[in-house]
Amino acid sequence: MTSLAANEFSESHRVVDHEVDDTRRLTLAQLINLFVLVSEDQNDNLGLGVDFVQSHGVGWVVTQYHFQVTRMPLAGDTVVVKTKATAFNKYFAYREYWLFAADGTTLAYGESIWVAMSYATRKIATIPMEIIAPYETAPVKRLPRLPRPSRFDETQTTETKPYLVRYFDIDANGHVNNAHYFDWMLDALPAEFLRTHQLRDFQIRFENEVRYGEAVASVASHTATTSQHRIMMGATTAATANAAWAMRER
Amino acid sequence: MTSLAANEFSESHRVVDHEVDDTRRLTLAQLINLFVLVSEDQNDNLGLGVDFVQSHGVGWVVTQYHFQVTRMPLAGDTVVVKTKATAFNKYFAYREYWLFAADGTTLAYGESIWVAMSYATRKIATIPMEIIAPYETAPVKRLPRLPRPSRFDETQTTETKPYLVRYFDIDANGHVNNAHYFDWMLDALPAEFLRTHQLRDFQIRFENEVRYGEAVASVASHTATTSQHRIMMGATTAATANAAWAMRER
Repeated sequence: MTSLAANEFSESHRVVDHEVDDTRRLTLAQLINLFVLVSEDQNDNLGLGVDFVQSHGVGWVVTQYHFQVTRMPLAGDTVVVKTKATAFNKYFAYREYWLFAADGTTLAYGESIWVAMSYATRKIATIPMEIIAPYETAPVKRLPRLPRPSRFDETQTTETKPYLVRYFDIDANGHVNNAHYFDWMLDALPAEFLRTHQLRDFQIRFENEVRYGEAVASVASHTATTSQHRIMMGATTAATANAAWAMRER
Repeated sequence: MTSLAANEFSESHRVVDHEVDDTRRLTLAQLINLFVLVSEDQNDNLGLGVDFVQSHGVGWVVTQYHFQVTRMPLAGDTVVVKTKATAFNKYFAYREYWLFAADGTTLAYGESIWVAMSYATRKIATIPMEIIAPYETAPVKRLPRLPRPSRFDETQTTETKPYLVRYFDIDANGHVNNAHYFDWMLDALPAEFLRTHQLRDFQIRFENEVRYGEAVASVASHTATTSQHRIMMGATTAATANAAWAMRER
């Protein structure tokens, strides 16, 4: 673990067999898990852990991610995961992530937008200064905007797979761990597509929370190089995403 | 990582948030992942990795596990995982596992029985000496016997949950990663039971392989202190298990 500036943090990680797919490459869900982990380790390191944030009546909630992938690491590779709490304003915080190979080349890059959700009102709250000042990031008027997933093309042929939220999908707060959305979304694509294609770009927007025991449908359509995704709870959209793909190098 | 005798191996691991359940304790599936990982690291360390084993026309397949749990570690805990290739005969290998807290107390103990499956015949083969000699374990006539899950009590009230095998459930060999059986089995129990009970003993026997896209049913029944489990593919049993539980300390 290396400490950089207060708003940056990095740590190394060995990719192991249960974090990879059948091509032996890190899964997107595990990439998110590593990005969330490095953020939490940074927060703990600065005394900004979950308990401290909760003591201010709020919890951090992610609303959007945008990932760009050059190459996913293989089982056995040691990688470096880095995050930066780059910018914030009254209501939104912008955080970046990097995944580096051992030789320093960038394997993946991520951007994310976070809000502070009030436990009392279940609505977005002003970000308490106490939970953001220790990063020593200067406030800004305008945050970078993340690309918003395009409107789902209803004319495309879609595939739908059903999922029941499992006990082991949920966090200590009773909500689904975000990483599971990525598995549901990609699992709706044909296995042969996943085996022969490499994810290049992934944009996801979270709209409504999913809870234990709920039934969701993962709806997907794809071309040779793009895919569109929705997680639905009945008529309610839980999340939407767009992905770009390239043929996988053998 | 510490090397002990050739047939023993241990390494440390930090339990992180995406490996725990909503009580913040390590899940059974992640415990198995850690046990499998320490075996693989031992194998690689001795030059007995998957490629070497495959070059002898076989692959290791687990047929039974028996786990005893004192206490599952919490997110943030650093633990030590240890394995020992304890005994083998012509057809079976017996391997033990330990999970230790940082202070050396035993959190969990596991036993397992492995066979060498021939790629040519898909049947159990004589264990090639080349893949077992480097452990420097003496061969034995009789291996320890693991408890066999009791016959499923058809008179009990059962709960059944359906699962479709997902792309991300499968290994490089096209079969379901064993860890998923544990999630399917326990997820069929009520969440409130899982939240208020601590697993003490778990015996599982694998009978038939499950592949990508197949539909399985997890069937479970429970009393206050025991549960019975079956994973079914239609009328075929994929795995059976028995568990013993105690009330969880708060």
